[in-house]
Amino acid sequence: MRRGTNLPAVGGFNQTVILDVIRRSPEALSRVELAEKTGLAPQTISNVTRRLLDDGLITEAGKHIQGRGKPRVMLELAPQSRYALGVHLDPAVITYAVLDLRGQVVHDASMRTPRAGRPDEIIASMAAALDELIEASGVDREKILGIGIAAPGPVDVARGIVLDPPHLEGWRDVPLRDALFEATGLPVLLEKDVTAAAIAELWLSGEAQHSDFAFFYLGTGIGIGLALDGEVLRGSTGNAGEGGTLVVPVDGLVDGRRSDLLGHLATPRYMLEQAADEGVLVPAPPANDMVAIDEGFDELVRLAEAGDAGALRILDRAASLIASALVSVVNLLDIDEVIFGGPFWERVSARFIFQISRIIDHSPDRVTRHPVALSGSSIGDDVAAVGAACLVLDHALSPRPSGLLITG
Amino acid sequence: MRRGTNLPAVGGFNQTVILDVIRRSPEALSRVELAEKTGLAPQTISNVTRRLLDDGLITEAGKHIQGRGKPRVMLELAPQSRYALGVHLDPAVITYAVLDLRGQVVHDASMRTPRAGRPDEIIASMAAALDELIEASGVDREKILGIGIAAPGPVDVARGIVLDPPHLEGWRDVPLRDALFEATGLPVLLEKDVTAAAIAELWLSGEAQHSDFAFFYLGTGIGIGLALDGEVLRGSTGNAGEGGTLVVPVDGLVDGRRSDLLGHLATPRYMLEQAADEGVLVPAPPANDMVAIDEGFDELVRLAEAGDAGALRILDRAASLIASALVSVVNLLDIDEVIFGGPFWERVSARFIFQISRIIDHSPDRVTRHPVALSGSSIGDDVAAVGAACLVLDHALSPRPSGLLITG
Repeated sequence: MRRGTNLPAVGGFNQTVILDVIRRSPEALSRVELAEKTGLAPQTISNVTRRLLDDGLITEAGKHIQGRGKPRVMLELAPQSRYALGVHLDPAVITYAVLDLRGQVVHDASMRTPRAGRPDEIIASMAAALDELIEASGVDREKILGIGIAAPGPVDVARGIVLDPPHLEGWRDVPLRDALFEATGLPVLLEKDVTAAAIAELWLSGEAQHSDFAFFYLGTGIGIGLALDGEVLRGSTGNAGEGGTLVVPVDGLVDGRRSDLLGHLATPRYMLEQAADEGVLVPAPPANDMVAIDEGFDELVRLAEAGDAGALRILDRAASLIASALVSVVNLLDIDEVIFGGPFWERVSARFIFQISRIIDHSPDRVTRHPVALSGSSIGDDVAAVGAACLVLDHALSPRPSGLLITG
Repeated sequence: MRRGTNLPAVGGFNQTVILDVIRRSPEALSRVELAEKTGLAPQTISNVTRRLLDDGLITEAGKHIQGRGKPRVMLELAPQSRYALGVHLDPAVITYAVLDLRGQVVHDASMRTPRAGRPDEIIASMAAALDELIEASGVDREKILGIGIAAPGPVDVARGIVLDPPHLEGWRDVPLRDALFEATGLPVLLEKDVTAAAIAELWLSGEAQHSDFAFFYLGTGIGIGLALDGEVLRGSTGNAGEGGTLVVPVDGLVDGRRSDLLGHLATPRYMLEQAADEGVLVPAPPANDMVAIDEGFDELVRLAEAGDAGALRILDRAASLIASALVSVVNLLDIDEVIFGGPFWERVSARFIFQISRIIDHSPDRVTRHPVALSGSSIGDDVAAVGAACLVLDHALSPRPSGLLITG
């Protein structure tokens, strides 16, 4: 049932709107400016800013005198009043970030994901790394709102469980959210990795904010997160964003098959298998050795940058498969922006964007002819960890009841 | 910039919410019940229902006496107070519908789309057919809010132009909206066909309302409209829903190609080409003869129903390609419901749903394991015309300023 607007939650909704405007503004704002920017009534502005000041989320930043009028008190975010932690569990690397209330990364760290580590061991090492992170960042633990985890899908978002991600060996029905809550005592929520990445782009893209885009994630696997009209698409069970099962045409590559899945053919692991088959790199690392894949991919990119024709051919082939899949997605969703990121993206960003852009622009299968803007994430390799932390800020600052954030 | 909730539009938004609740309720409701169902304040309910009564959109339906309390005045929709017309321009058939304010079809009609007709001739015949429709329905012209047109994409929704749909010969940059406005004097809006179909499902699915689904449209071409969280997805230029460029694997069917597009291999036209190639039906109708394709498809389905192995093979092959594409879409968007419709659907509905359901349930490429509910549209062949008319009701009853509805 769609409901009207004067629900109890509206006060909180307005608070979120006002805090959002203050958070995004590069300069302090007066209450009059807030009323103009939000469309909210002066009385509402007055009540809400009083509450925000009492909670320490905003501070007064001097007075602004204009002509003969009453001086206006300027308000700005108190970024050091609250913090959130983000963890991104990728099969190759675990990334950590500490964000202040403005969403700025104040500290980050990363470590290789232990090869074939048992989930409970990995969770224990995550908890230890989070303790170290808090210590190293110098942030008061009392000010930490919680921990967001970005994990590979499929996940059970409501119950905080990692189900059976194809690239995380030995992980099956792992209650990661509750385990990390028990290990740290901090509120924890779990989100799918590509969804977290899309959230980071929504939160942190600044004044020229993106609100409708696909986030193409090149990790150990491939994902396509979606933001539509300023909201991430989670889907019916929080598992939207699975881009790896899009079918792409192949050109004599795969024995006996005439097409295959993007999530097979465009992964770093498969690129390295091709590099071995075609004599560009020998040998291909074992399929489950994420560290070797990471290092092998470094080597493949280095060769391509040095002009090696074989390495360039393999990268360009992957780019063209990604472009083919994106043409389908652009047509299906009428999207005009794609942001790229993920742990393997940065290394190939310039070349891939050039190639993918060329193919999308000239594809005979495009239905609309409007330009599609392609860009690498400005947040970089931390993007999913940052997004998971943003989600904690969202949940903690928004009045919506959330079953996702476990708080004991 | 996201804005707060006490904008001038909110009164109108609340009006829409209240009218929506009254419209969907099978029984008359008191103001107290409206307050409970919407969460709106009694004073808001009182003001808005007064305005709705003044406008004739709702009526008083007696009083309800409960215990010793003051009798409650019951309110219900006045379905005959307003009407909307819907037109669906498909390359094979043009469908017309008259809807009352509740969204019930009070009259409908259809005619074959003239083969190779010039756009201006077709528009003139649409205007004449609409006049006849109004006359035949007995509806007072003064009560008609406007005309919604559902057209094949790509379209320019903002300017009401049909751009260059692949199956509508001779249509290129046709200002259909403005032309039909000039011909009829009624407000007109234009929407892409699959989007209109999804709108019909959102509007008319009753108490057990669908809010997240893909609408698979089997017409002369193939579309996949999307409703997410109760809203249709239009995309950046109103052209979302292009499902025909999803890549599907082929099995030795197409010369020299290892994969092809769903919008080629699963169309009725291509099924008839296969039927000719495989000696099931001879000859295949010319590619641009929509009437012959319609009749040929009837014959193919008749043969399949009579147990012809060749006809069954061709239909099942198309169903399996549709299923393959839907697995990708279900994974990408984490959708748990697919509704099927369009002018060619009804004839194959039972068999296709059986086959597609079987394949989706057992696909090794499914990421999540939750069931995907498949159903044929309960609205039937009129679905896009009905959706276009629903859109007129939406626009006329909602206070949102709309550049889409041309009103002179």
